[in-house]
Amino acid sequence: MGGESEKWVLMVTARTPTNIAVIKYWGKRDETLILPINDSISVTLDPNHLCTTTTVSVSPSFDHDRMWLNGKEISLQGGRFQSCLREIRARAQDVEDEKKGIRIKKEDWQKLHLHIASYNNFPTAAGLASSAAGLACLVFSLAKLMNLKEDNSQLSAIARQGSGSACRSLYGGFVKWIMGKEDNGSDSIAVQLADEKHWDELIIIIAVVSARQKETSSTSGMRDTVETSALIQHRAKEVVPKRVVQMENAIQNRDFPSFARLACTDSNQFHAVCLDTYPPIFYMNDTSHRIISCVEKWNRAEGTPQVAYTFDAGPNAVMIARNRKTAALLLQRLLYNFPPQSDTDLDRYVIGDKSILEYAGIKDMKDVEALVPPPEIKDNLSTEKSKGDVSYFICTRPGGGPVVLSDETQALLDPLTGLPK
Amino acid sequence: MGGESEKWVLMVTARTPTNIAVIKYWGKRDETLILPINDSISVTLDPNHLCTTTTVSVSPSFDHDRMWLNGKEISLQGGRFQSCLREIRARAQDVEDEKKGIRIKKEDWQKLHLHIASYNNFPTAAGLASSAAGLACLVFSLAKLMNLKEDNSQLSAIARQGSGSACRSLYGGFVKWIMGKEDNGSDSIAVQLADEKHWDELIIIIAVVSARQKETSSTSGMRDTVETSALIQHRAKEVVPKRVVQMENAIQNRDFPSFARLACTDSNQFHAVCLDTYPPIFYMNDTSHRIISCVEKWNRAEGTPQVAYTFDAGPNAVMIARNRKTAALLLQRLLYNFPPQSDTDLDRYVIGDKSILEYAGIKDMKDVEALVPPPEIKDNLSTEKSKGDVSYFICTRPGGGPVVLSDETQALLDPLTGLPK
Repeated sequence: MGGESEKWVLMVTARTPTNIAVIKYWGKRDETLILPINDSISVTLDPNHLCTTTTVSVSPSFDHDRMWLNGKEISLQGGRFQSCLREIRARAQDVEDEKKGIRIKKEDWQKLHLHIASYNNFPTAAGLASSAAGLACLVFSLAKLMNLKEDNSQLSAIARQGSGSACRSLYGGFVKWIMGKEDNGSDSIAVQLADEKHWDELIIIIAVVSARQKETSSTSGMRDTVETSALIQHRAKEVVPKRVVQMENAIQNRDFPSFARLACTDSNQFHAVCLDTYPPIFYMNDTSHRIISCVEKWNRAEGTPQVAYTFDAGPNAVMIARNRKTAALLLQRLLYNFPPQSDTDLDRYVIGDKSILEYAGIKDMKDVEALVPPPEIKDNLSTEKSKGDVSYFICTRPGGGPVVLSDETQALLDPLTGLPK
Repeated sequence: MGGESEKWVLMVTARTPTNIAVIKYWGKRDETLILPINDSISVTLDPNHLCTTTTVSVSPSFDHDRMWLNGKEISLQGGRFQSCLREIRARAQDVEDEKKGIRIKKEDWQKLHLHIASYNNFPTAAGLASSAAGLACLVFSLAKLMNLKEDNSQLSAIARQGSGSACRSLYGGFVKWIMGKEDNGSDSIAVQLADEKHWDELIIIIAVVSARQKETSSTSGMRDTVETSALIQHRAKEVVPKRVVQMENAIQNRDFPSFARLACTDSNQFHAVCLDTYPPIFYMNDTSHRIISCVEKWNRAEGTPQVAYTFDAGPNAVMIARNRKTAALLLQRLLYNFPPQSDTDLDRYVIGDKSILEYAGIKDMKDVEALVPPPEIKDNLSTEKSKGDVSYFICTRPGGGPVVLSDETQALLDPLTGLPK
């Protein structure tokens, strides 16, 4: 261990995307190692709109490991954090920063303490897989700090132990989490199927739906499903393996109709096995159902899917439009059916990639109010509008994987004190 | 054919109960004959609260078959009505009414026309299996009119062709619809597992839930499920056969915990396969979900099931309480969570067997307003009350099978004209 004094702070800042599964992960075969009962496939979301930024720092002056999430100190005592920290420390290498005159030998990492600050550029509580991005970012940034030799796929097996779906956030574009066969989980890793440029017309619109009830956590929910559902094993063993192959092909061939059909049916089946759990788990609510009806009616009217939808363990809808034009038409439909409350600013009701809003010809609330019913709506009974059922929409697209931010101004910790800025 | 003049009218009036499945029927293997892909089990509901009354009449003066439902003339041209009429006419026997001096030979039934009037003592549109009671009553009353030799089980095979679940309304108490093996459907019949006196402590409370969206008809819904769900065959072949055996035992032994667990999980699984259908079918809504949560929380707090719930192809909850006392406690919880709208009369908000209301110590709206949260509710977040989510409650119990009403004043047709009274 070195440096002129013991006051040095060494740090790394990284940014990691969140991801949305299009073939769902639900059910573990090993609770501690977080090994799933089936493969899953996800799309990485553009980190410009949804990501976690994490600064990890080490200093001989730190006397214990500490972490701040969105500015608030949180406990690192949880088993999952500890698993990740232990796995990474075990793989730490010698680190030398000539400029700062710092040398850390690999055995020193067991004694040195860490400060970690993490920040989500989207609401943590909105049910947008913040833990996936967060754990992936923690593992990725620590791996850089400690100079690990492992590639992202190997790192994904560590992130997996923090939060299952976190392993898929180690890559951009289209990612497959291979369930693996080994008892120790070494082959339960993420691999990239295609990068985000492979299919770059896709546009993603997320409806953040106002929830009325507290949701079942996905950890306890999937445990209950595995223990009580009479359908989950059939899904995992018979249905998903075929869908994974079909989804890989759909992505490879940019076959949107197949992609959409698989994404929608797999999301629905995941919620079906939740309902088949005892007691039953409901993640979707009436607003989620209305969003599905809106998309299904349109897809049916067009004769071929324009938009896919998928829902994670909450009521939020993630909709994937085949291109910019359909995304604009989708946004018009969504704003027609789910207008903002009167006192909401359009600018805060549709966030992320605002160009979709422009493309849809919507500049202000007057344009929203002037929207006419889409042609596929025939009976006005089903078009009851309710303001406030959706909190806001995020427009985004498939995006890239984790990156190190070398610009020190983006660090979340003070380079001198190692405390949050 | 005889009588002094050709002006005679011969008629029969019968009353038939509705039923609620506790092991669900969902999916046909033959659309025309209405042959199911699995056995199902139901509880017959007390006809004093939910039933169809039908008067069937024949006269040489009628020039075509006519039918009135709840006072309004409807078409008899539908394939399902025609199937039932054809099957019954084919089995018609000689009929003699000495008092009226009427003689009808069995071959005459092919030429004679019928007038039929049917009346539900509950709202037809409320999604309370009105077609089951209606078709069962049609078949039962015609069988009496035409002097059929077939027993109720054989009649059930005819009613089945009008509406699948109608076959289970030919018996009171606890009824099993055996799916059968024959291609012609002759062995797809209902049998009584136990009569209504076998387990007479059970009390049933139905929440008629206000629906926002038009529902998918069960005919097209189950067809879509069979065609698109990846889980329905597993349910029909692997899950239901075991549950049917378990449910028969639970009924035989009056084992309420097993009965409740099976009824709840099977209802949930039926809705799960609806969700696994493409496009997905949602019959339950947020109110249905809240009713389930309310029951599940209470059952969990008590350590053993107090109440079972089951939902058919709509948002209405049918709750089965283990006895009168739990029914009263359930009704208190339901009225606490789902109070009537301010302008609703309690007398019209809780209908059917009013003694449950008395037993619960609720005499008027002031008593409803004075209800305190049940002890199992700890977080007030989940106890958001919304007036108007439930239209009304019906208190009832398991009840008896079809009966002929010999009192002519109960007939729905005028004995002289054969037209609705």
